[in-house]
Amino acid sequence: MPLLRIDRAAFHADIEALSRLTDPAQPWTRRSFTPLFLEGRAWLTERFAQAGLDVRIDPAGNLIGRWPAAEAATPVLMTGSHSDTVPGGGRFDGIAGVAASLAAVRAMRAAGHVPRHTIEVVDFLAEEPSDWGLSCIGSRGMAGDLGPRELALTGPGGETLASAIDRVGGSVAELSAARRTDVAGFLELHIEQGPVLETEGIPVGVVSAIVGIGRVRVRFAGLAGHAGTVPMAGRRDAGLALARFALAVRDEARRAGGNGHFTATIGVTRVEPGGANVVPGAAEAIVDIRAERDEAMARYVDTLHDVAAAAAAAEGCTVERIETLSLTTAVPCDEGLQAIIRAAAGRLGHATRPLASGAGHDAAFVARFAPSAMLFAPSREGKSHCPDEWTDPDALADAADALLGALVLRDSAPPFNA
Amino acid sequence: MPLLRIDRAAFHADIEALSRLTDPAQPWTRRSFTPLFLEGRAWLTERFAQAGLDVRIDPAGNLIGRWPAAEAATPVLMTGSHSDTVPGGGRFDGIAGVAASLAAVRAMRAAGHVPRHTIEVVDFLAEEPSDWGLSCIGSRGMAGDLGPRELALTGPGGETLASAIDRVGGSVAELSAARRTDVAGFLELHIEQGPVLETEGIPVGVVSAIVGIGRVRVRFAGLAGHAGTVPMAGRRDAGLALARFALAVRDEARRAGGNGHFTATIGVTRVEPGGANVVPGAAEAIVDIRAERDEAMARYVDTLHDVAAAAAAAEGCTVERIETLSLTTAVPCDEGLQAIIRAAAGRLGHATRPLASGAGHDAAFVARFAPSAMLFAPSREGKSHCPDEWTDPDALADAADALLGALVLRDSAPPFNA
Repeated sequence: MPLLRIDRAAFHADIEALSRLTDPAQPWTRRSFTPLFLEGRAWLTERFAQAGLDVRIDPAGNLIGRWPAAEAATPVLMTGSHSDTVPGGGRFDGIAGVAASLAAVRAMRAAGHVPRHTIEVVDFLAEEPSDWGLSCIGSRGMAGDLGPRELALTGPGGETLASAIDRVGGSVAELSAARRTDVAGFLELHIEQGPVLETEGIPVGVVSAIVGIGRVRVRFAGLAGHAGTVPMAGRRDAGLALARFALAVRDEARRAGGNGHFTATIGVTRVEPGGANVVPGAAEAIVDIRAERDEAMARYVDTLHDVAAAAAAAEGCTVERIETLSLTTAVPCDEGLQAIIRAAAGRLGHATRPLASGAGHDAAFVARFAPSAMLFAPSREGKSHCPDEWTDPDALADAADALLGALVLRDSAPPFNA
Repeated sequence: MPLLRIDRAAFHADIEALSRLTDPAQPWTRRSFTPLFLEGRAWLTERFAQAGLDVRIDPAGNLIGRWPAAEAATPVLMTGSHSDTVPGGGRFDGIAGVAASLAAVRAMRAAGHVPRHTIEVVDFLAEEPSDWGLSCIGSRGMAGDLGPRELALTGPGGETLASAIDRVGGSVAELSAARRTDVAGFLELHIEQGPVLETEGIPVGVVSAIVGIGRVRVRFAGLAGHAGTVPMAGRRDAGLALARFALAVRDEARRAGGNGHFTATIGVTRVEPGGANVVPGAAEAIVDIRAERDEAMARYVDTLHDVAAAAAAAEGCTVERIETLSLTTAVPCDEGLQAIIRAAAGRLGHATRPLASGAGHDAAFVARFAPSAMLFAPSREGKSHCPDEWTDPDALADAADALLGALVLRDSAPPFNA
């Protein structure tokens, strides 16, 4: 098996060109469904075509470049990521994976590789939380998970998601045709968005699982009062119950993961009524929980009830409400594809380490219909979803080479028989 | 000296009538400078006149009912409170004091009392924080503390405070004439707004001092990151620094007061950027501090710097900024007038206790130009500045009787020579 490498200059130029299609007022922003997003897609369509791919938009709005196998009706080896961004995001989240998949295809074609599978490069529609309140719209569509409830969601100007998908080239009337049963495997390159690879000096992360995500809202009730006239003794300050709770959420999270990836974060808090001279009578928080192991998630969510009750009691308050807003299970990555990524990195001389993805990805929805795996490139200081997001160009190209190698290795195995 | 008592029915009817002049959408609200406020003042003007008082509005916008002494140019014995409210406030804060002063005058006249002092009942303008960002506007004016900076403050519609004062009947052009040097003593009845009197079953609180108020803003800087991808170890979560700080602020406050009234409260917090899936990169809080002893305030504000630094360090964060937004000194109440209030309550058979006022009052500004003192009636469950604010009608009348008695006692002493 020849050891192929991507054209690094062309790869970096693609990332640069696509990232520059940004809202100038808020770099780096290219929100799904916007004119800028469509500009990016027009640019990608051209680049896909230049790489010899047949380009189409599927009924769920995914942009797909197809390199058919010599033999008709062979299963598909899929690779890709997304070209949309969060508001004020970075230059790599999503783009890096689309560009790496495209660079890999160019390298295979340049090397005269004859694919055993039909190879598809996909720019999934709206991976990031969109203005319709939904993320991973395109990959949900491929998995058959866009139902009437999702399609009826409304975004800017009251436009339904169904209309928006049609507007960007999808076809909701034929949505069932977006469902895929012909995919033998899916590989996605993404930046880590965390500090693990950089800290450990490891160039390629092999994703073991995409975490389950839980959101729990807790509301404490105390007794509001005048900050000057209610003595310290006997106060029932809901803000202090929240403070105790926040510290306990972290302490419990440190214990909760076992061997797997586990985080718990309070990023949203509210203290009421919110006057400088009023003892808080109520306070609430949303706890974001990410767990590689579903049993750790379940145990932790249970524990939160006790933790909240204890924090409330210690401050003479009560837990007015504790509710699980959402809860998804973890998605393990395909073991066979993980082994192939490790092998490909090994042939290039790159160390790897397994790590869970703490963020959601299209790969988690693709896993519903096909073996699916991801590899990560290091993020500088772990920063992501911010303008400072950065990955060293050579490190990113190293990971793209590993993606290329994994695609070649997987393609060389008999279709549907990894 | 005869033991006078107010007409309880008329007293309660006054409170009831004035409190009913409320914004129907948000009881009990009668914000200073609004049409409702002016309606209340028109009603008060009539009631003042019915009690035989000469009514005027002074250049600072205070409504004053005057009962001249037989002898011309005698000094003034002043009593009163305010008729404005906070938004969504209660039926007693301010009103109770105005009505009690009026009831006392009626009782004195009914008993044929011949005043040695000129007696004035005052409804001070805008005691509560107004829409111009300033409180105690009328009493500041009497103290000569309304300067160009205050008068230039703008409120709703861009109206300056100067215009607003003129609009409600004041006369900023003659503001210096509002300054008072002719006041021999000032007595204000107010509800406690705290739970001390109710808890101890004491009907009359004799205010020892009006606390100094400090406001300190603290801002912590951490490192924002993705809630799913940044491992728990090594996080620099500014929200957790804030949580530690909040608990320490309370713990230190419990130690800080010594023998005097002392509170510290965090009623305003902000966590940034405020996304459920983002580790907070910054967090801030405003600490409200109330101290009867200025040295306790100064020590505590110093301590806050250490407390903030320790909280930040424990979470890998830094104190980005800590600043004292405002700081006032405590105002002791006049000892002679306190003794008179105790004597008056004692003649009625009412127990008293000294207590500091944790809230600011017009009396603190009056103290700049005259001996000044306050007495408190119990607040049910200590609630104030909320629709549930309540004082038992008989308890309130007991306190009004004590005010009446104190006015009679003080008036019986030679003018300027208590």
